[in-house]
Amino acid sequence: MKVVIIGGVAAGPKAASKIIRLNPEADVTIIEKDKYLSYAGCGLPYYVSGEVKEQKELMCTPVGVVRDPVFFQKVKNVHVLTETEALEVDRPGKRVRIRRNSDGEESWREYDKLILATGSLPLVPPLPGKELKNVFTLHGVQDADGIKAVLAKEKARDVVIVGGGLIGVEMTEALVKKGCRVTIVEMFPQIFRMLDWEMAQLVAQHLESHGVKILTSTKVEAFTGKDQVKEVVTDQGTLPADMVILSVGVRPQVQLAKAAGLDIGATGAIKVDVYQATSDPDIYAAGDCVECRDLATRKVCYMPMGSTANKQARVAANNICGVRDTFPGVLGSTICKVFDYAVARTGLTEATAREMNYKVVTASAPGPDRAHFMPEAKSLFLKIVVDTKTRRLLGVQATGPGDADKRLDVAVTALTARMTVDQIANLDLCYAPPYSPAMDNLITAANVARNKMDGYLDGVSAREVKGMLDQKRDFIFLDTRSQGEYDEVRLPNSTLIPLGALRKRWQELPKDQEIVAFCKISLRGYEAALILKAEGFKKVRVMDGGVAMWPYEKIKG
Amino acid sequence: MKVVIIGGVAAGPKAASKIIRLNPEADVTIIEKDKYLSYAGCGLPYYVSGEVKEQKELMCTPVGVVRDPVFFQKVKNVHVLTETEALEVDRPGKRVRIRRNSDGEESWREYDKLILATGSLPLVPPLPGKELKNVFTLHGVQDADGIKAVLAKEKARDVVIVGGGLIGVEMTEALVKKGCRVTIVEMFPQIFRMLDWEMAQLVAQHLESHGVKILTSTKVEAFTGKDQVKEVVTDQGTLPADMVILSVGVRPQVQLAKAAGLDIGATGAIKVDVYQATSDPDIYAAGDCVECRDLATRKVCYMPMGSTANKQARVAANNICGVRDTFPGVLGSTICKVFDYAVARTGLTEATAREMNYKVVTASAPGPDRAHFMPEAKSLFLKIVVDTKTRRLLGVQATGPGDADKRLDVAVTALTARMTVDQIANLDLCYAPPYSPAMDNLITAANVARNKMDGYLDGVSAREVKGMLDQKRDFIFLDTRSQGEYDEVRLPNSTLIPLGALRKRWQELPKDQEIVAFCKISLRGYEAALILKAEGFKKVRVMDGGVAMWPYEKIKG
Repeated sequence: MKVVIIGGVAAGPKAASKIIRLNPEADVTIIEKDKYLSYAGCGLPYYVSGEVKEQKELMCTPVGVVRDPVFFQKVKNVHVLTETEALEVDRPGKRVRIRRNSDGEESWREYDKLILATGSLPLVPPLPGKELKNVFTLHGVQDADGIKAVLAKEKARDVVIVGGGLIGVEMTEALVKKGCRVTIVEMFPQIFRMLDWEMAQLVAQHLESHGVKILTSTKVEAFTGKDQVKEVVTDQGTLPADMVILSVGVRPQVQLAKAAGLDIGATGAIKVDVYQATSDPDIYAAGDCVECRDLATRKVCYMPMGSTANKQARVAANNICGVRDTFPGVLGSTICKVFDYAVARTGLTEATAREMNYKVVTASAPGPDRAHFMPEAKSLFLKIVVDTKTRRLLGVQATGPGDADKRLDVAVTALTARMTVDQIANLDLCYAPPYSPAMDNLITAANVARNKMDGYLDGVSAREVKGMLDQKRDFIFLDTRSQGEYDEVRLPNSTLIPLGALRKRWQELPKDQEIVAFCKISLRGYEAALILKAEGFKKVRVMDGGVAMWPYEKIKG
Repeated sequence: MKVVIIGGVAAGPKAASKIIRLNPEADVTIIEKDKYLSYAGCGLPYYVSGEVKEQKELMCTPVGVVRDPVFFQKVKNVHVLTETEALEVDRPGKRVRIRRNSDGEESWREYDKLILATGSLPLVPPLPGKELKNVFTLHGVQDADGIKAVLAKEKARDVVIVGGGLIGVEMTEALVKKGCRVTIVEMFPQIFRMLDWEMAQLVAQHLESHGVKILTSTKVEAFTGKDQVKEVVTDQGTLPADMVILSVGVRPQVQLAKAAGLDIGATGAIKVDVYQATSDPDIYAAGDCVECRDLATRKVCYMPMGSTANKQARVAANNICGVRDTFPGVLGSTICKVFDYAVARTGLTEATAREMNYKVVTASAPGPDRAHFMPEAKSLFLKIVVDTKTRRLLGVQATGPGDADKRLDVAVTALTARMTVDQIANLDLCYAPPYSPAMDNLITAANVARNKMDGYLDGVSAREVKGMLDQKRDFIFLDTRSQGEYDEVRLPNSTLIPLGALRKRWQELPKDQEIVAFCKISLRGYEAALILKAEGFKKVRVMDGGVAMWPYEKIKG
């Protein structure tokens, strides 16, 4: 069996290795247009930062062997042609026309099965000046080396990141540590559009606390400079820029597939079935060039991820070798590191769930990520979205310095199994003080959602409260924390009655007045609301997330 | 509604708080025989180590308010009687006889609903000398203070820990850091009986690397000394001991329940239904005094845990207040920290699964816990147990310095949802280099199990290989790592042919010979086996876990 694989970064080499394992007789060739093969693209921000010291570490096996063509030949018996471009797929002839970059020589390569692993390309907005020096994307090793070279030259620099998506923000820490003044310019009203607004706002606050400037609802119009970029022109004014990093997303590379007449989906990526087969049964595709099923929205989506590429490659390889295997889809699970914060989400955001006409309840659970008395405990801000009809979890978002990845991966598994919050609340998660609180953060969030659905807790979002404050609506914004906590930091127009005093002092509050109770994380706020309700107060709600997750300015000292 | 709760440590206060939230009119009283209320018992090892600086941190809310009787009264409107013992439950009269320790005054307390949260007591083996000074259990704050006092006195000491269970081993790090010479004496052939032998052996090796002596299959017969303990007499000899910590398990406190004629289960703990009700519909029980359902074995079990206590208390409180709620059971999820290693398991071990007549396949997946090029990546040793009939996951064990808790909690969720390894292999877990490898460790383990079940990988356990070596069986123990790795550390009687050379050198191996291939983690071993099979070798197997998880002595240098 002759297998040709076009693309040698993630899905391609993975599929090649798996095919050889299943069928050692197979004749497998990888065609890669670049010099580099099988490198970890997701590691580039850490190579720029210097955490990953050498380029070759991104191309090594875990035991330090470089995955070059010699390695693939000797170890895997896979033939690799680097710096070779695939120009055309001749489907009737079952062959691929290729051109060697070194001498321009063209030839045909026959296949029984073909895998397209052509990946993606960074989107480059068609703006004047985009070709100026020091305007980068971050997609390949060359980009990373270019950015590193600029960083090595001067000391303080103005860097503008265009687009508040993953790659740009992942770069921010490295840039700030090198002494750059970083501005993120985002055309939408928030960065991290994978999150609900108030969760994204917590991340924005964290970035700002590290001196990063964030301009939302701001459109870049041009890059100016002579030879080298000097300024970024936006619809809100002009920014100095010694370097620009474009991070507005990627698009699938589908020219070959399109030219060969393969079906392209509405997302612009190659259409594949659950076996990773394209519309031609002898051609498979995997990785950043294909679309797949979003298990949360039940729609087709384009969500390129290194983890997904590996899984799809395995499925394609299995099916090519006659082992029936399917790739079920993704949940839009995403995580990234922003200074000390993790930022993550899986499944539906509240906004998306509402757009899909779910009747949802949300629960915010800020709190320490392990037993609060452990010195290494860190804050974690969780938000879960639940379908009130089925009581099923729909999505989870998290940020903060605490271990977000653990709770997210548990949520991914629960979402895949279509669990209700009632089931999640009783999961027998591992407990010891160095690893989690006795009631894990996700379990607490599930219980808050249950309390809301069962009518014990009337929640109100910080955003709605901010609207009430801005409209100068007549309500009592009841802080139930201690005097000491209040003196340190407080919310605007709030009234302090510590929870411990409320049973004696509730008479100070007018019974017919609307009340919004809160505390640091809103457990005491919840208890305050219950006390007031028991005393006959009718309009008492509890603010989701408390002071810990208030996404606006706080009053300090 | 009058609710009396006997026990004020974990389940008791949790149930009290929840009842008051659901029913602010309820008259709730907690009876606690001790001085201390609502403290985190699981935090005691960290209080002894000094990581938790003050006793009161174990008794505080996350914002630092001490949960004392005044707090419960003021904040929760829960009445608390500390240093008060419950002597008798008069079920026909629906009242509890109590005695105040301070003056011995007895009185009756009426209830509509009673909750038994009487907890557990450490098992103290009936050995001569157990009452000597400096023989401790670690169950209450008093024990911890006693141990701390001894540690504060001298510099280097001999400490014998009797029983290789959780609490004893959790204490080891603290003791070694204080300069103690620690010996763990275990009557069974392994410590950590919650793990399979070879996984426990990896933990034992880690303990030994920190100077801890481990004596298995060793029975303690007596403690000797004049006033203060000086020696521990075992059936294998006598050990010097300035302090002894008994860690042989706990037993449920059920005297009150038993005397009141409530059903006690075969485990010796109080029998409850899924609503946490005892055999008396007006008496509920929760926490360390009850038994529950093991979802993995489908049998009733006794598995006291702080996390379970909290969940059961919530369920009991809900049902008492008329909100139907059930506690489904546990999976035996356990985690603890042993120096730099996490040790964890959930579900069935291989041994238990085989006892239950499952036909199982196991997969070991040692590897870095995040992208291998990230400097903070640490090794994680996973073992999963899978039912070959249904392809369902049955259990997971982990140890090593890497993030075990995340993979375990994902496994807990997958086990609860009864997922197959095929489903687990395609979970859309969150991926970014600082958080996990592109293929998460659990996904890799699932794929190894799939390869085994689908006939591509013939595994053999390290234990079986050791047996073959000990019996001097004629086979080739084929190391497929590099010369450099081999020179650093190797396994006994192994033959080195690096994987990259195997396609040229396989002729050196006799085709009819039995071969066991391995590498560091056994991926290269797997590829070697496939190469040899393709060349016509018939008896080639791959050793699970490779050098990384070899539980016996290795040859160094």
